[in-house]
Amino acid sequence: MNTETVATTARPVGKIMLVGIGPGHVDHMTARARAAIAEADVVVGYVTYIKLVADLLEGKEVVRKGMTEELDRAVSALEAARSGQKVALISSGDAGVYGMAGPTYEVLFQAGWTPDDGVEVEIVPGASALNACAALVGAPLTHDFCAISLSDLLTPWPTIARRLDAVAYADFVVALYNPKSGRRTRQIVEAQRLFLRHRRPDTPVAIVKSAYRRRQHIEFTTLDRMSEQDIGMLSTVLIGNSNTVVQNGLMVTPRGYANKYDMSEGGATRDGEKAGRSLSTGLNGWLENLIADHAAGESVEQLATRHRLPAPYIAATLAEPLAVAEADAAEDTEA
Amino acid sequence: MNTETVATTARPVGKIMLVGIGPGHVDHMTARARAAIAEADVVVGYVTYIKLVADLLEGKEVVRKGMTEELDRAVSALEAARSGQKVALISSGDAGVYGMAGPTYEVLFQAGWTPDDGVEVEIVPGASALNACAALVGAPLTHDFCAISLSDLLTPWPTIARRLDAVAYADFVVALYNPKSGRRTRQIVEAQRLFLRHRRPDTPVAIVKSAYRRRQHIEFTTLDRMSEQDIGMLSTVLIGNSNTVVQNGLMVTPRGYANKYDMSEGGATRDGEKAGRSLSTGLNGWLENLIADHAAGESVEQLATRHRLPAPYIAATLAEPLAVAEADAAEDTEA
Repeated sequence: MNTETVATTARPVGKIMLVGIGPGHVDHMTARARAAIAEADVVVGYVTYIKLVADLLEGKEVVRKGMTEELDRAVSALEAARSGQKVALISSGDAGVYGMAGPTYEVLFQAGWTPDDGVEVEIVPGASALNACAALVGAPLTHDFCAISLSDLLTPWPTIARRLDAVAYADFVVALYNPKSGRRTRQIVEAQRLFLRHRRPDTPVAIVKSAYRRRQHIEFTTLDRMSEQDIGMLSTVLIGNSNTVVQNGLMVTPRGYANKYDMSEGGATRDGEKAGRSLSTGLNGWLENLIADHAAGESVEQLATRHRLPAPYIAATLAEPLAVAEADAAEDTEA
Repeated sequence: MNTETVATTARPVGKIMLVGIGPGHVDHMTARARAAIAEADVVVGYVTYIKLVADLLEGKEVVRKGMTEELDRAVSALEAARSGQKVALISSGDAGVYGMAGPTYEVLFQAGWTPDDGVEVEIVPGASALNACAALVGAPLTHDFCAISLSDLLTPWPTIARRLDAVAYADFVVALYNPKSGRRTRQIVEAQRLFLRHRRPDTPVAIVKSAYRRRQHIEFTTLDRMSEQDIGMLSTVLIGNSNTVVQNGLMVTPRGYANKYDMSEGGATRDGEKAGRSLSTGLNGWLENLIADHAAGESVEQLATRHRLPAPYIAATLAEPLAVAEADAAEDTEA
């Protein structure tokens, strides 16, 4: 470590706090998010989000930015922090999910910032739009899910389309961020087109606008009617998987208990299944069957087609010896 | 509305609150999560999570359950709520993400519950493990991402494998939940095998254990070494996309500003790009080129191969007239 580094770390330390304020109602902010804003000298954010934390702003410098100015916001924050101030950069939802954490680090790296140079960075996590919207419509995200932004302002369309196609095929629950705007109207039509190649037209879809805010609006529809709905820049679109249902006005994706338990029989396990253990079609059971079917003459290509998995993957996993661990299952029962 | 319904809604109302307490440190709980626990008569949860809210439990009935007993926990909650009590069912992270919201609604539907029958249900969103872990390692989730649980306790392995394969191909950032346990050790090996078919061996991976808790531990590695690492039931594994970097001990996925702006030139837009507008390779620009290339003799199949998209999709979108909206872009500049 040279003298200059020592001198640098001894300077008064500024700080950038990237604060996720959650969906936009004060009740759904974390204690740390409030405290971070309260201890800041400067608060920087999109005007709408600044309004949401108005009660915390007395005596602070407030920098209100428009939506185009993410990089500007990060540059302002770095300048203030380098002068020794504490800066809270506000994002709605989670700062790390399509929020300010990414652009800020991009600007910092570009400016030659390192964690040792006298400006500390803290990211304060929050509930993202997908968590907030899911909480309002039921329990749609209980199984594997994806977030995809339909905005092509920074992402080429083939990248977005490839992702939509892949997750529609692989049966994920999907949250679409930035689904539509006054000018970007065809993206949601293209998303629907890609999904309908793999999913049933009656797949449940929920459109949530302004979750936990004054103009909150929730609409249930189906995949084949999704693109006709009232969707805007403040909407998040949730598309269910092949098991998702809407019942009693709630959108719920089953976690899979019905694969193992007879739900109508007080939770008795089904034949061949054990509570707290992998399914009979889990990895080990599946591999045992794969090996047996292959030994019985089914080719790698036939197995690949039947299981809808790549043939090289089937070949590679068949080549590895099967070792069934006998450890106690007690620690391993979270679904 | 018949008389019986009226009588039912007039009964004393019990309530089930599905509370996401965030990563597990009190600073990262929302105000509503604390208030929901404070107003509950009964608090039900996995022992570890109950300990995290110990200061709120005085005078309450506390039901500590083991990890196997998700359905039991939901049944207990429903019974208490039907007797007029307020019940807080606690999940770590977000109650809707691999948490108690799903199993609870499954049990409620099975028990014939409807929103009008005198038991109210509220879901309190929180920051999920992926938000918390991302905040600690940098900004890995700034672009499209997925959550996949490697647990095969309720999900057949081919379903999980198909999802891993699809999102590895489509270049998502991926958060693996329940990546490994004492008994489930091969799932992470299989995940690595599937990813390495599509992703570079040096793809950045972060392994976060016990985020924001006392034993918090963060390790950076690469995809080819992922399965050799110390991974357990309290770990979340974050796999970057093809653009993710680790720099200065931080894992960051670029949002895409460099596609549009020259980051070293004070943010000047690149040739052919406009600030606040779709990329030249965004949907409209891409469609214009697609139409031109097709008119110049490139077949649908050739276009499909070059853009790595399904030929029927290319054909369908070529068949739809191109309408370039001329609306003002001002409202549409969130990335």
